[in-house]
Amino acid sequence: MKLYGYWRSSTSYRLRCALELKGIAYENCPVNLLESAQKDASFTSRNPFATVPMLEADGRDRAQSMAIMEWLDEAYPEAPLLPSDLEQRFTARELAYAVATELHAPLNLPVLKYLKNELGHDQEAIDTWYRHWLAKTLHPLEKRLAQLDCGDFLFDAPGFFEAVLIPQLYNARRFDFDLTDCPRMVRIESACNALPAFERAHPSAQPDAH
Amino acid sequence: MKLYGYWRSSTSYRLRCALELKGIAYENCPVNLLESAQKDASFTSRNPFATVPMLEADGRDRAQSMAIMEWLDEAYPEAPLLPSDLEQRFTARELAYAVATELHAPLNLPVLKYLKNELGHDQEAIDTWYRHWLAKTLHPLEKRLAQLDCGDFLFDAPGFFEAVLIPQLYNARRFDFDLTDCPRMVRIESACNALPAFERAHPSAQPDAH
Repeated sequence: MKLYGYWRSSTSYRLRCALELKGIAYENCPVNLLESAQKDASFTSRNPFATVPMLEADGRDRAQSMAIMEWLDEAYPEAPLLPSDLEQRFTARELAYAVATELHAPLNLPVLKYLKNELGHDQEAIDTWYRHWLAKTLHPLEKRLAQLDCGDFLFDAPGFFEAVLIPQLYNARRFDFDLTDCPRMVRIESACNALPAFERAHPSAQPDAH
Repeated sequence: MKLYGYWRSSTSYRLRCALELKGIAYENCPVNLLESAQKDASFTSRNPFATVPMLEADGRDRAQSMAIMEWLDEAYPEAPLLPSDLEQRFTARELAYAVATELHAPLNLPVLKYLKNELGHDQEAIDTWYRHWLAKTLHPLEKRLAQLDCGDFLFDAPGFFEAVLIPQLYNARRFDFDLTDCPRMVRIESACNALPAFERAHPSAQPDAH
């Protein structure tokens, strides 16, 4: 498999976590988002959405990290990301999709660029925007985790949810978001980041990191 | 089942489409987003994300429409939303998640409110923002549909993808988005909207419509 991604793209990071957790080997193919390489015709002919990550796998160019994670678990059932229990599967997806839809999307690079270039906002306004959406989802997420009474991971081992959460906590720290009120998430973060799979998936461990 | 939603919320509309396609009966419980009823303690104690839709089903309050759709298909395998073929499942999810993450999220009501109230933008700037994100995902989506050579539906019958697409096309029309370059999507829209399931799920058919 070939993973076309960018070291600091949180959806690329998410998919690296998923692949590492499943123990699937892949070739890392950097796409330089700062140079808009994802908009080159050579890339958009394969992925019209002009997004990373794109996974070349089993004869097909696959876009959309959440769809790829669902596919990976179906095509490669070993080391499942989702638990087998129906209700646990729902819980993992509910929390993961809260992060992937409500939290991640307004923080996506194209949105931040639009705020800066089309709407003329300065970095301070953009940072405030960023932290606003982090708080809006991370604080209720912490409440949901408290209701679930989880420990080092959502369930017994890290999986679907943790692969989505950890890259967003990395972003939260980059933007100096205060995680004091999120002890359960910080505990999960510490437990994950101590594992070799998450170490290998970390942005700083990627060949295009700078 | 009880569906807590709002007539014009596109994620509520999405979930109504899914329930109707699966033939699952539910009670419609309107939550008035314009009066911020989703932020009442009586609601957030059940759904800390303060979002609609919320589905009360099988003894549990469930948030996040995409997670609920995945759960519905697993808990109620009759009339599946996702095809059984592994590659078709991936296709349906890739397109649905493109809409659910990249397109829907920047158009969400809280985001539009932030642009207006915190960032001081006028309706014209907000409408331009809205159409910008519609174009950014709908045009590549149309290209993907062309690659797939689909007809009235993505596959043989409407399902996971159509439930997500139709509410966004409803939004696109509300914001006078030009769909001339999207003939495949418009064909799917026409075919879906002629079906009783989509008629019943339509915003105008809801008890809280005004």
